[in-house]
Amino acid sequence: MQAFMDKDFLLSTETARTLFHKYAENCPIIDYHCHLSPKEIWEDVRFENITQVWLGGDHYKWRLMRCAGVDEKYITGDASDHDKFMKWAEVVGKAIGNPLYHWSHLELQRFFGWYGALSAKTAEECWNTVNKKFSDPAFSARGLIRQSNVDIICTTDDPVDSLEYHELLAKDTSFATTVLLAWRPDTAMNIEKPEWPDYIKRLTSVSGVSIQSFADLKKALHVRMDFFAAHGCSLSDHALGYVMYAPASDEEVEAVFAKRMGGGKVDAHEQAIFRHAFMTYVSGEYVSRKWTMQLHYGCRRDNNLTMYAKLGPDTGYDCIDTYTPSDQTAAFLGSLEKAGCLPKTILYSLNPADNQAIDTICGCFQNSDAVSKIQHGSAWWFNDHFQGMTDQLTSLANLGYLAGFVGMLTDSRSFLSYPRHEYFRRILCRLIGEWVEDGRYPADEELLAEIVRGISYENAKKYFSFETKKIN
Amino acid sequence: MQAFMDKDFLLSTETARTLFHKYAENCPIIDYHCHLSPKEIWEDVRFENITQVWLGGDHYKWRLMRCAGVDEKYITGDASDHDKFMKWAEVVGKAIGNPLYHWSHLELQRFFGWYGALSAKTAEECWNTVNKKFSDPAFSARGLIRQSNVDIICTTDDPVDSLEYHELLAKDTSFATTVLLAWRPDTAMNIEKPEWPDYIKRLTSVSGVSIQSFADLKKALHVRMDFFAAHGCSLSDHALGYVMYAPASDEEVEAVFAKRMGGGKVDAHEQAIFRHAFMTYVSGEYVSRKWTMQLHYGCRRDNNLTMYAKLGPDTGYDCIDTYTPSDQTAAFLGSLEKAGCLPKTILYSLNPADNQAIDTICGCFQNSDAVSKIQHGSAWWFNDHFQGMTDQLTSLANLGYLAGFVGMLTDSRSFLSYPRHEYFRRILCRLIGEWVEDGRYPADEELLAEIVRGISYENAKKYFSFETKKIN
Amino acid sequence: MQAFMDKDFLLSTETARTLFHKYAENCPIIDYHCHLSPKEIWEDVRFENITQVWLGGDHYKWRLMRCAGVDEKYITGDASDHDKFMKWAEVVGKAIGNPLYHWSHLELQRFFGWYGALSAKTAEECWNTVNKKFSDPAFSARGLIRQSNVDIICTTDDPVDSLEYHELLAKDTSFATTVLLAWRPDTAMNIEKPEWPDYIKRLTSVSGVSIQSFADLKKALHVRMDFFAAHGCSLSDHALGYVMYAPASDEEVEAVFAKRMGGGKVDAHEQAIFRHAFMTYVSGEYVSRKWTMQLHYGCRRDNNLTMYAKLGPDTGYDCIDTYTPSDQTAAFLGSLEKAGCLPKTILYSLNPADNQAIDTICGCFQNSDAVSKIQHGSAWWFNDHFQGMTDQLTSLANLGYLAGFVGMLTDSRSFLSYPRHEYFRRILCRLIGEWVEDGRYPADEELLAEIVRGISYENAKKYFSFETKKIN
Repeated sequence: MQAFMDKDFLLSTETARTLFHKYAENCPIIDYHCHLSPKEIWEDVRFENITQVWLGGDHYKWRLMRCAGVDEKYITGDASDHDKFMKWAEVVGKAIGNPLYHWSHLELQRFFGWYGALSAKTAEECWNTVNKKFSDPAFSARGLIRQSNVDIICTTDDPVDSLEYHELLAKDTSFATTVLLAWRPDTAMNIEKPEWPDYIKRLTSVSGVSIQSFADLKKALHVRMDFFAAHGCSLSDHALGYVMYAPASDEEVEAVFAKRMGGGKVDAHEQAIFRHAFMTYVSGEYVSRKWTMQLHYGCRRDNNLTMYAKLGPDTGYDCIDTYTPSDQTAAFLGSLEKAGCLPKTILYSLNPADNQAIDTICGCFQNSDAVSKIQHGSAWWFNDHFQGMTDQLTSLANLGYLAGFVGMLTDSRSFLSYPRHEYFRRILCRLIGEWVEDGRYPADEELLAEIVRGISYENAKKYFSFETKKIN
Repeated sequence: MQAFMDKDFLLSTETARTLFHKYAENCPIIDYHCHLSPKEIWEDVRFENITQVWLGGDHYKWRLMRCAGVDEKYITGDASDHDKFMKWAEVVGKAIGNPLYHWSHLELQRFFGWYGALSAKTAEECWNTVNKKFSDPAFSARGLIRQSNVDIICTTDDPVDSLEYHELLAKDTSFATTVLLAWRPDTAMNIEKPEWPDYIKRLTSVSGVSIQSFADLKKALHVRMDFFAAHGCSLSDHALGYVMYAPASDEEVEAVFAKRMGGGKVDAHEQAIFRHAFMTYVSGEYVSRKWTMQLHYGCRRDNNLTMYAKLGPDTGYDCIDTYTPSDQTAAFLGSLEKAGCLPKTILYSLNPADNQAIDTICGCFQNSDAVSKIQHGSAWWFNDHFQGMTDQLTSLANLGYLAGFVGMLTDSRSFLSYPRHEYFRRILCRLIGEWVEDGRYPADEELLAEIVRGISYENAKKYFSFETKKIN
Repeated sequence: MQAFMDKDFLLSTETARTLFHKYAENCPIIDYHCHLSPKEIWEDVRFENITQVWLGGDHYKWRLMRCAGVDEKYITGDASDHDKFMKWAEVVGKAIGNPLYHWSHLELQRFFGWYGALSAKTAEECWNTVNKKFSDPAFSARGLIRQSNVDIICTTDDPVDSLEYHELLAKDTSFATTVLLAWRPDTAMNIEKPEWPDYIKRLTSVSGVSIQSFADLKKALHVRMDFFAAHGCSLSDHALGYVMYAPASDEEVEAVFAKRMGGGKVDAHEQAIFRHAFMTYVSGEYVSRKWTMQLHYGCRRDNNLTMYAKLGPDTGYDCIDTYTPSDQTAAFLGSLEKAGCLPKTILYSLNPADNQAIDTICGCFQNSDAVSKIQHGSAWWFNDHFQGMTDQLTSLANLGYLAGFVGMLTDSRSFLSYPRHEYFRRILCRLIGEWVEDGRYPADEELLAEIVRGISYENAKKYFSFETKKIN
């Protein structure tokens, strides 16, 4: 019987323990996709207690509390931080099998040195012990990042963003972690959304391009991509319902644009052809700028309309959308490839049933531009747990080249989430250890070390070619 | 090496053995969904031999025999009970990996004290030993239920049913098990079926509402729901191809109704808008009556038309329908939620690829009305085996709150099926035991016992708030 | 810790070791579906080195090299055989978790007696050792087949094929392996393809039937099926995007045919009704001829248009197509069954998410025509690895009758692929061993041996009723 979450947590074989402790554990972190606020990093925000950092904005935790029947008062409501923590402790304490159980305990262990098992029974003691830490500057935003050995962070940024905090962070030699930006133009693409017309006005304003047509929109995006590039951007990110293949003529696309600008409603087909044209344009730009494209899809958002009205987006009301047709994904990438505008691409589907299809799609577009130019993204969001990561790694190994994988990212809004990289590395070493000790791969420590360090750190470093901050 | 199906069957760890034998094994059974006949319970039917109770109506077994190439004569044909048993024994004896192997042996062990391994070699001895038991009154319908420690049974009942046997059972103080009813109005909803017009006449007759419109149908259903409620009903059940989202105006729905009443054929879209309207209406009723709604979907029925003509429905010719779009399921529940008419709901899909999507949909509609108000139903029908249950429990644990799960049901037509609850509890304890002994959850017996007893019994008791029979 | 790929590779229990070494290992091979060239077998081709046989035409290996970022020069380009091998060794040496790692090493062990671990470090030594063997006649095409204990091979043949090499092989008493043919009329069915009109002319020419209508096409196919039957054919094979159900009148089908013959473009619906009619016709023929029908579906081919233009089809640019609607598969088989023209059928989907749906569809059409008349085909192509085979076997065992399974095939273009049968048998024995040693099935060696030998060899022998060559 393995002790509860000790230093060998999840490391079920001697091989796994060796690989993790000798090669994976001490690799720095490249967190190439997250939702941290550059402003908060710049301001080096402080927290009063664990509730603020844990429950202040983490919809994963909110969701679990709601599943356990907790009143919203203790989730996003006006209960005290103490009382919210008590409820959370009670819920997570019984959340057997849930990744939040592991994430929470890894965070308590790594940042706060608290090694108990959180539950209603231990909640008060944990609250008192942990909260004492927050007066220590090592528990500010930057302090937490420093504690986590983070080389590079990529935030997620809108084309209209001023990037002022990125500028400030780039110049700040007191903070060794490189904070990079990522281009996420979803709002510009989501032509059917109520906020789109206003957004086009904002984009007109910041780009200096008067946007009257799709051609204008492309010009404005081009201006802003230049601006992002000048700030060191080399990564984009897109949220799509599904990866669509809906080619249309320029005239058709312009007609959709004009219809919407005139106040008309665009139907599903019109949305698809607009998105297709939009994505095709930016893909070509990414190729010439050597940017990597991330495609996140398979999500249906904001399903609870009552709660959306109260709390807005990203509050725990999203679900997997199983409409993720692999034929359109393949056709879209194929059309880019044919036109010479297929950039390095990372595919993430929220639907775990897509794992194998994704790996076979990736395989159709690989070449010597990069090791695993088309990547199957790490188990994302609802799949970001032991089973989901194991499944993604196994599928990638079966159907692609696991040794070329760029590995983990947090996708998080919290400064405490870096132990998810540790969680991933433990699962990776466990899986590899099981294969080796089952006689399926030789116990060649040199090769294994190269594979493990590659996936933990080196591959991302090479693949993204990020420019890191020079500090002398 | 673990002995063949002994008392520690499937209990692979010390933790699993402790949890099962100390906490799960002796919990009573709440079988909240099955297809037993209230008439047969009331009449306390007797059986002459094991073939009658095993092969008389069990399409799972028929199906396996057909897969093994057995002639229909020995399945539903005119072979003797003895010969049918011999064929079944031969087939099941080689059915390695099939849940029927385990179910059959658990039934032989628990009810008949026969601990052998059934096969062609042992069939004759088993036949002779087991059949001797049927003269014992403990082997009547009620006897078998009594032996199984069943607190509550919910049958499946049609709105036009007289409920006479439920009335008789409710008054019968000689039988301690509470036999409750469940409302299943599929025939009223399936407007395209040939039997629908006649059914509407029957519903007119029993409700006293002359049904000339959809508004009338709703009135008639209301009358019958009152009748069911007066008999203690608090649970509904629906069989759907998929959970549809197809909103339409009252006029459109009435037009579909009128078209069908006039002898017209309703197309797929018309069926969808009718079903949507029907389900929306009953959902609202369930909320005000505090009933729970069960949605069973992802099934394509009666695929073998030749055999359907000979044997009718529910004879082993159904399959998984992979058209189960999560976006429509989410949109339908979202529309109910917005309208304030989303009852406690249990989602069961026959397509195991839906597990994760279902858990994320459930998460969008949880609140403090109940612990896990929206439930991911137990691995259903074709998924009701070691792998299927393990997958459902793992997905629920990863994405929801396993500790709030209402657990197992038999969905069975047989009085011998209660050991499936034992099977489920063993699998649950095995899974939890593996997690604990792998260091993924603390070995806190108090918490583990609470979780295991909850899922085995207590959660269902609280969630459904069934009223049990008072016997003094 | 299990030694690396030794004689007990993958045999994790004593039961597995006994079953494999005593019962599975020495069964002959029936390779009922492959893509070997009858001409190459007849000519008994020789190879100069391992690169020619490994990398000459194996798109699995090409694909993996591209995933690892290798330049096409070393894949299908003009690099020397030596340099290509060096690149391959480097890539496969790090391909942890990939089935090509295991296949390559099994081939090196079984044919060449090389027991190392191939990587950049050992490549040169392996190259030198292995290549010495090719001067030995035992390493010709027939020699490799002989070494592999192959009873029967079924190639894949086009209706217009002359079958001359099959004739020659049938008469050649110096070669004990029976080389049978399989009917694969895809080109005749793919009415939308650019090559179809020319193909119809060739079919006209070889059949002697002037093809002016769909009725004529059926006549021509009938003539060629007679010709194939006269050469011992009893197996067909079809590649479909998905198994379609699209019934139409004869007139509608003829209209599609006429439109295409007139140079018109047929849309997706027209393709579907044509395919439906085509498949319905040939199915009926298969029943009267007692042929087995294989349906391979769920594939999207030739996704990389640039590389397709350079290298043509079957060069590593295909992917899983997730559009594989189970309702249409079930409806199509149901329509055949109703019309009395459902032959013995094997269903293979490239989408592993279909496993359970397929097993439930099979279950709807079983009868006493054969043991498991409708078969769930062995894990195919992208699923042909440890996980994929384990999943297919588990699903089949859960939902059908594993003991009736016809087992493995190579689907290969290479004379070195027979160890995939060994790989499959090891995985089968491992799975069964785990079940037995977990107490889920009795340790009854007699029954287990029957099951294992059945799946390895006996079932295919009975199911297909192939006529083998008489050599006296």
